[in-house]
Amino acid sequence: MSTLIAHLRSTVGAAHVLTHDDPTTDLSAWEQDWRKRAHGRAMAVVRPGNTAEVAAVVKACAAAGASIVPQGGNTGLVVGGVPDNSGTQVLLSLTRLNRVRAIDGANLTMTVDAGCVLQNLQTAAAQAGFLFPLSLAAEGSCTIGGNLATNAGGTQVLRYGNTRDLCLGLEVVTAQGEVWDGLSGLRKDNTGYDLRDLFVGSEGTLGIITAATLKLYPQPAAKLTAWAAVPSMQAAVELLGLAQQRLAAGLTGFEVMGQFALGLVDKHFPQLRVPLWQDTPYCVLLENSDFESEAHARGLFESLLETAFEQGTVTDAVVAENLTQAKGLWHIRESIPLAQAEEGLNIKHDISVPVSSIPAFCEATDAELQRAIPGMRLVNFGHLGDGNLHYNVQAPEGVDGKAFLRDEEERINTLVFDAVARFGGSISAEHGVGSLKATKLPHYKNPVALSLMRAIKTALDPQGLMNPGRVI
Amino acid sequence: MSTLIAHLRSTVGAAHVLTHDDPTTDLSAWEQDWRKRAHGRAMAVVRPGNTAEVAAVVKACAAAGASIVPQGGNTGLVVGGVPDNSGTQVLLSLTRLNRVRAIDGANLTMTVDAGCVLQNLQTAAAQAGFLFPLSLAAEGSCTIGGNLATNAGGTQVLRYGNTRDLCLGLEVVTAQGEVWDGLSGLRKDNTGYDLRDLFVGSEGTLGIITAATLKLYPQPAAKLTAWAAVPSMQAAVELLGLAQQRLAAGLTGFEVMGQFALGLVDKHFPQLRVPLWQDTPYCVLLENSDFESEAHARGLFESLLETAFEQGTVTDAVVAENLTQAKGLWHIRESIPLAQAEEGLNIKHDISVPVSSIPAFCEATDAELQRAIPGMRLVNFGHLGDGNLHYNVQAPEGVDGKAFLRDEEERINTLVFDAVARFGGSISAEHGVGSLKATKLPHYKNPVALSLMRAIKTALDPQGLMNPGRVI
Repeated sequence: MSTLIAHLRSTVGAAHVLTHDDPTTDLSAWEQDWRKRAHGRAMAVVRPGNTAEVAAVVKACAAAGASIVPQGGNTGLVVGGVPDNSGTQVLLSLTRLNRVRAIDGANLTMTVDAGCVLQNLQTAAAQAGFLFPLSLAAEGSCTIGGNLATNAGGTQVLRYGNTRDLCLGLEVVTAQGEVWDGLSGLRKDNTGYDLRDLFVGSEGTLGIITAATLKLYPQPAAKLTAWAAVPSMQAAVELLGLAQQRLAAGLTGFEVMGQFALGLVDKHFPQLRVPLWQDTPYCVLLENSDFESEAHARGLFESLLETAFEQGTVTDAVVAENLTQAKGLWHIRESIPLAQAEEGLNIKHDISVPVSSIPAFCEATDAELQRAIPGMRLVNFGHLGDGNLHYNVQAPEGVDGKAFLRDEEERINTLVFDAVARFGGSISAEHGVGSLKATKLPHYKNPVALSLMRAIKTALDPQGLMNPGRVI
Repeated sequence: MSTLIAHLRSTVGAAHVLTHDDPTTDLSAWEQDWRKRAHGRAMAVVRPGNTAEVAAVVKACAAAGASIVPQGGNTGLVVGGVPDNSGTQVLLSLTRLNRVRAIDGANLTMTVDAGCVLQNLQTAAAQAGFLFPLSLAAEGSCTIGGNLATNAGGTQVLRYGNTRDLCLGLEVVTAQGEVWDGLSGLRKDNTGYDLRDLFVGSEGTLGIITAATLKLYPQPAAKLTAWAAVPSMQAAVELLGLAQQRLAAGLTGFEVMGQFALGLVDKHFPQLRVPLWQDTPYCVLLENSDFESEAHARGLFESLLETAFEQGTVTDAVVAENLTQAKGLWHIRESIPLAQAEEGLNIKHDISVPVSSIPAFCEATDAELQRAIPGMRLVNFGHLGDGNLHYNVQAPEGVDGKAFLRDEEERINTLVFDAVARFGGSISAEHGVGSLKATKLPHYKNPVALSLMRAIKTALDPQGLMNPGRVI
C-alpha cells in the first residue's frame, strides 16, 4: 500500500496524509467515534483541500482497491464514520473543505463546502440577515456534509424539515471519482431521477458529498418559548394538534419530556431550576417563531394556553418573559442527555412512530419494559412534533450501568424495536444506521426495500469501496 | 401475445382488459395524450383493481417481455403516459385504484390509492377538517399517482413544496412485480436510502406507484389575495423578498404575469375584468393564508403594500374584498393559457432559474428572441416565488400558428433552453421529461448525473420494460 500512500501524498500534499508510520502522530481524533464505542485503525488519514483533490483521492483508492471512510466532524452516534481495525481503510476527512461559496439573498440560498461546521453556517446566514434553521446538539463541531450524509434532524424539524428538506442541490464525488456538479438554487427541477435525495442520507456509502446549496429563511422577528405541564402523553398529542392549528408554521418546536428525565436534570443540575415537573407525568416545551413581534407571539401563546387549560390538555404553564428565560428552558431540555450520563450508563434509542400512535406505543412499551426489567427507569423525551422519541432505558436504582448494558442491552433493544415495528415505526429516526444498526436492518426493514437498496449500492459502487459495512 | 392477453384477462377480469380485437372499443382516451400531440396504439389497456393485481400484471408482462406504460388521469404535458405506435405495449391504467385508505388527523396524514383524482383528495381532506395543499390546473382529472410520478408543482409550491415534499411514504410495484410497502406516516426515518424520492418523479420508469401516505395541514382561517402592478421584473423579485419577510409561511402564492399575457385575457375574456394591466409591464398576484382571521390577513397585506409603495416596488394595487373577488383574481391568472390558445398555437416552456436570476434572464432572453423572430410575442407568466416561468412564445401578429410551430419551434426551444442553461436553470421545472424532452436531456443535463441515472435505471429495471423511452 505504500504506492497508494505516496500517490495520495503527491495528490493532497504530504502534510495532509497522516499515517501510523510516524509514531508521534496521534490519529485517535479520526479513528475513535465520539461516544468512544469504537476505535479503529486507518491505513491513512487523508485531508484533501478541495473537490478536485477529493476526486483524485477517490480515483487513487479505487485503482488500488482501497476502501474509503468519509468523515466530517466525527460527531455521529451510530459509528458510521470511523475506520475498522484492519488498517486497510483510508479515512477521508472533509474538514479542510470549509468555505461558504456564495450567499444569494434574493434566491434564499447559500452554497457551502461540505466541511463547514454547522454553527458557522448558522452564523454566516445570520450575518447576511437570514436564518439557516438546522440546529442540533453537536452544531459546534458537526459538519454540514455529515448532516447531509446522515439526513440529520434536530429541534426545528417540525417547521423546517430534516436536513434533506433544507437542501436544494449537491456536489458529489462518485465512487468512480467523477464529480457530479448538482449544485442548484432551483426550487423546481423535474429533469430526471432525484439523485440529490439518494445521496442525502446514504452515509457515504454511494459517494462523497463535497458541497451543497441550502435553503435560507427570513429571520423571525421574535422567538417565544412556553413550558407546560400535561396530564398524559395523549394530552400532549392533543396540545400539539391545537398548537399546529393556532400557530401554524409559527410552531417551530414541540418537545416532550417525561417526569423521570426532568427529575434527573433537577437532581444533577439543580441550578437549572426545572419548572412544573414534580406533579405531572410529562412536560412540553413549545417554541413560537413570530414574524410580527414578541407581543404578537405572546398574545397567540396566551390564547392557545387558555384554550388548552379549558380543554384539560394543560394543567399548568409558564411563558418565557424574555430571550434569556427562553434559552434557559431550551437548556433544560438539552441537559437531559447529560443528566442521564451523570446518573450512569444507559441504553439509548432514537425511534419514531406516527404521532397519533405515540400514546399507545408508550403505554404498551413502558409496561412491557417494566415487566421485563422490574425497576428499570425510562428516560423518555424527544421531538414529539415529529413522532421522534429518545426512549432511553436506565438501569434500576443501585444496579451497575456497565453490567446492565452488558447483560440487558440486546434484550431491551429487541423489545423496543419489536414494539416500534408493531406500531409502524422506525428504529432510527434521526441518527442513521452506521455500523451500530446495520445488522438490525435485515430484520426490521422491508425486504423489498432492502433488495432495492442493494441493487442501487451495487450499481453506484460496484467495487464496494465506499464506507463498507455501513447501512447495508 | 394472445397468451399474455389471456393471462391478463384471468388476472384482472376480462372486462378490464381492452384490446383492438373488439372493433367497437375506442381506446383513444388512453392512447392519445391530453394535448393531442401523440396518438399511439396499445397491445391492451389493462385496468387492475388493486395493488395485488398491479403486481400480477407486471409479473405477467415481465415474463412475456412486454413493456408497460403506466397511466393516471392522462393529463400530462410531456407525452409521458401514452403508448408508442408499435402495438406491443401494455397500457396500465391505475384509475380503478381510487380509495382513500385512511385519514389520521393526529398524525396529519392520509393514505390513498394512486388512482385517486387530486380534487377528490382535496375534498376528502377538507371534509376531515384539513388542507391537502397540492393544487394545479388539471386537479379535476389528474390522479395523485401521476402527480407523484411527475413530482407535480402547481400554485402552492412556494409554501408547501412540490408533490415530493407532500409525500411521506409510497407503495410501489417494482419492475419485477414485487410490492414494496413503504407507506409510512413517519416524518423521520433514517434507515437507508431514500427510495421514496427516487420513485417520486421517475415517471413510471423504475416501478409503479400504487399508493401513498401524504401530508395534511391545518386549514387556514382566511385566504386573502392581492393584485399589484410592478414597474419591472426586478421590482417583482424585490416585492417577493419583502412579502417573504413580512408574511413568512403565510405567503402561499406569488405569481407574476406579463402585460401581453394579461392583454390576451382582456382581449378574449373581457368579462373577467383584468385589473391594472394597461400601464405596467408586469402584475403580481399574492396570496396570504392566515391562521388568525381575515382582518389579520388584511392588516398584514395593507402594511406590506404600504412599504412596497414607499420602496417603489409597487405602483398600484388592489386587495380582494372577499373570497369571490379572490377567486376572480386567481381565475384571471389561470385563464392565461386559455386566452393564449384562443390567440393561436404557441411554443410552450416550463423553465426555472434561481429567483435572483429571473430579471437578468428575462431581459437577455426577451431581447434575444426579439432579434431572432422580430414581432414574436411573449406570453410570460408563472410561479415567480419558485423561479418557475411559463415562458411561451406566440407567433407575430398575422403569422399562422401552425406554420410558426413547424418552422420555428426547434430554433426557439434551443434559444430558450440555451439561455436557461447559461443561467443555471432547468428546462423542465414542473412538467417532467416524458418523451417530449427525453431527447433534450443528453444535451442539457449534467453527464455524470445522466450516467448515474442510467446505472439506477439498469439496476432497478434490467429488462427495460418500465415506460421505455421516457426520461432516459
